[in-house]
Amino acid sequence: MARIAVVAGDGIGPEVVAQARKVLDVVLPGTEATEYDLGAARYHATGEVLPDSVLAELAQHDAILLGAVGDPSVPPGLLERGLLLKLRFEFDQYVNLRPSRLWPGTSSPLANVKPGEIDFVVVREGTEGLYAGAGGNMHTGTAAEVATEESLNTRYGVERVIRDAFARAARRPRRKVTLVHKTNVLTHAGGLWARTFAEVAAEYPDITTEYQHVDAASMFMVTQPQRYDVVVTDNLFGDILTDIAAAVTGGIGLAASGCINPERRHPSMFEPVHGSAPDIAGRGVADPAAAVLSVALLLDHLGHPEAARRVTEAVGAELAGRTPGAPLRTEEVGDRLAAAVSA
Amino acid sequence: MARIAVVAGDGIGPEVVAQARKVLDVVLPGTEATEYDLGAARYHATGEVLPDSVLAELAQHDAILLGAVGDPSVPPGLLERGLLLKLRFEFDQYVNLRPSRLWPGTSSPLANVKPGEIDFVVVREGTEGLYAGAGGNMHTGTAAEVATEESLNTRYGVERVIRDAFARAARRPRRKVTLVHKTNVLTHAGGLWARTFAEVAAEYPDITTEYQHVDAASMFMVTQPQRYDVVVTDNLFGDILTDIAAAVTGGIGLAASGCINPERRHPSMFEPVHGSAPDIAGRGVADPAAAVLSVALLLDHLGHPEAARRVTEAVGAELAGRTPGAPLRTEEVGDRLAAAVSA
Ligand SMILES: CC(C)[C@H](C(=O)O)[C@@H](O)C(=O)O
Ligand SMILES: CC(C)[C@H](C(=O)O)[C@@H](O)C(=O)O
Repeated sequence: MARIAVVAGDGIGPEVVAQARKVLDVVLPGTEATEYDLGAARYHATGEVLPDSVLAELAQHDAILLGAVGDPSVPPGLLERGLLLKLRFEFDQYVNLRPSRLWPGTSSPLANVKPGEIDFVVVREGTEGLYAGAGGNMHTGTAAEVATEESLNTRYGVERVIRDAFARAARRPRRKVTLVHKTNVLTHAGGLWARTFAEVAAEYPDITTEYQHVDAASMFMVTQPQRYDVVVTDNLFGDILTDIAAAVTGGIGLAASGCINPERRHPSMFEPVHGSAPDIAGRGVADPAAAVLSVALLLDHLGHPEAARRVTEAVGAELAGRTPGAPLRTEEVGDRLAAAVSA
Repeated sequence: MARIAVVAGDGIGPEVVAQARKVLDVVLPGTEATEYDLGAARYHATGEVLPDSVLAELAQHDAILLGAVGDPSVPPGLLERGLLLKLRFEFDQYVNLRPSRLWPGTSSPLANVKPGEIDFVVVREGTEGLYAGAGGNMHTGTAAEVATEESLNTRYGVERVIRDAFARAARRPRRKVTLVHKTNVLTHAGGLWARTFAEVAAEYPDITTEYQHVDAASMFMVTQPQRYDVVVTDNLFGDILTDIAAAVTGGIGLAASGCINPERRHPSMFEPVHGSAPDIAGRGVADPAAAVLSVALLLDHLGHPEAARRVTEAVGAELAGRTPGAPLRTEEVGDRLAAAVSA
């Protein structure tokens, strides 16, 4: 019996999560879901972002399903660092998984790319690099101010995420891994990444590998997104590349993501990449597709690949049947998807 | 009499630089040009990348015109760090200027963007941040390895490049500056950038400002590149954003750049963003447009805005007159451009 912590969050979060849960209840009956009211609302009500007691409770779950947190009324960065990043670090979610597909029925801003042609996944490191929070300011606010940010990379951290990328590539038909870094400038961290990549690659002789500098990869993701299969990269580069990937596949509206602790020693977290979208919240018009696709990632992670496949296919069929630009109702999409997976 | 150091470099470098010089000779007659054979060829012949004596000679010039350096036969990173980055740092070229235009006659990979609609410039910091080279490795090659990269940012360095961006925006019709950083994660450096930006912005009440996280900016540069006018950002973010900008405006083939010391205390360097393209070198088919546009940036920097405008317009007319996909001859394009600017 899977125990899922649900953080519906703010804005459209609760609306899309409700649909995701409908689908989850159908494909994995008997799932035990507990709701946690983290996000902007709780922060305003109590001043708390993530109390230790809640963190301890979350830790007792198999996975976390998150809608969206954030609201313009909350100081920028507060929920990001106090909640999202805190969970990634506390629960050692070192694989930040972001699949990118150009679904049939949807369209890309790119002129020469057809639905079905883009299908890659970015395996972004989630616990190291410039996200470590190492750095400081001196002589703050004066003409002499100095500010530093330190990227921390360990062989331990780099190797485990690269291994995850290769393991995923081995399960995909194209069997290709692209390492993205900036080895010509960031020689210290780049050296560690490149050497570790080469060593792991040697264990997978039938997987094709390539290396690209992050600037080149950012360009090719626009001009030739078809070329990627599995992309592995560091925390900050992954942040940037996955947003480019979302852009070329039609926007973050359809992107799902998982912050994963592959060994399941801690709960992993699954969430649509889109935000709380306060502008459309409460109107029942948010697209729950990305939240439902996040459920598919959750199912896959918890060892239900067949259920994951059914959810993904249901979303694919739903998108393929849409008329571009036609209005949608959140509830109706959720009902259709729940019906599709039960069929 | 302007004294220009010419580093034609490798591959197609000499071919495109020859055309750039033709144009320069017409618009700024009497320019004194001295050639320096830096690049892969010199490295192979002598083992030298940038001898101190050459650096001292380069310092005596008003500007450097560079074609392209690099060849697959040279260890990766060697010329980048030993020559390009070294010149940026030695000559305090703190403004890395990269205009992006979607020229009439050219096409973008983006479906919904028309020529003329994209016209922005990225002002990238060129002497600080993660390019400082601060960092190291410990326990290298073992399971205990740690690698660090440190981003160094000073108020001095941040303020001067932000001031440059505002000064440029004040001379452009749309008068808008976008700061790109990642203040929600890189709070130390992000704080310095954001505070400094706000202070300089206060001196320019009639310039519109906005802030975007680098991941959001990477997405919007694909989905709404029309929205940008002047973008100011740090060294690494600028590296990435300018490649996305090149991608959406039809590839790096047409992109020009300047590494600028605005006070002209040291020579600035102007170069096409494209590389040495060994695959097409020696065939006389490389497009010299980006090299010639780099001459326009050089002219502007040396105080000849009218000549710069003529060169830019000549390139614009040349591109507008092209049939997409039609073959071109490097020499012929250079002759046409030289004739156009002399008219
Ligand atoms: C909200 C922010 C801290 C986060 C990140 O930078 O990782 C977001 O951009 C993401 O990609 O999940
Ligand atoms: C070659 C490399 C060191 C350089 C950089 O990273 O700045 C290049 O990518 C650029 O943008 O000019």
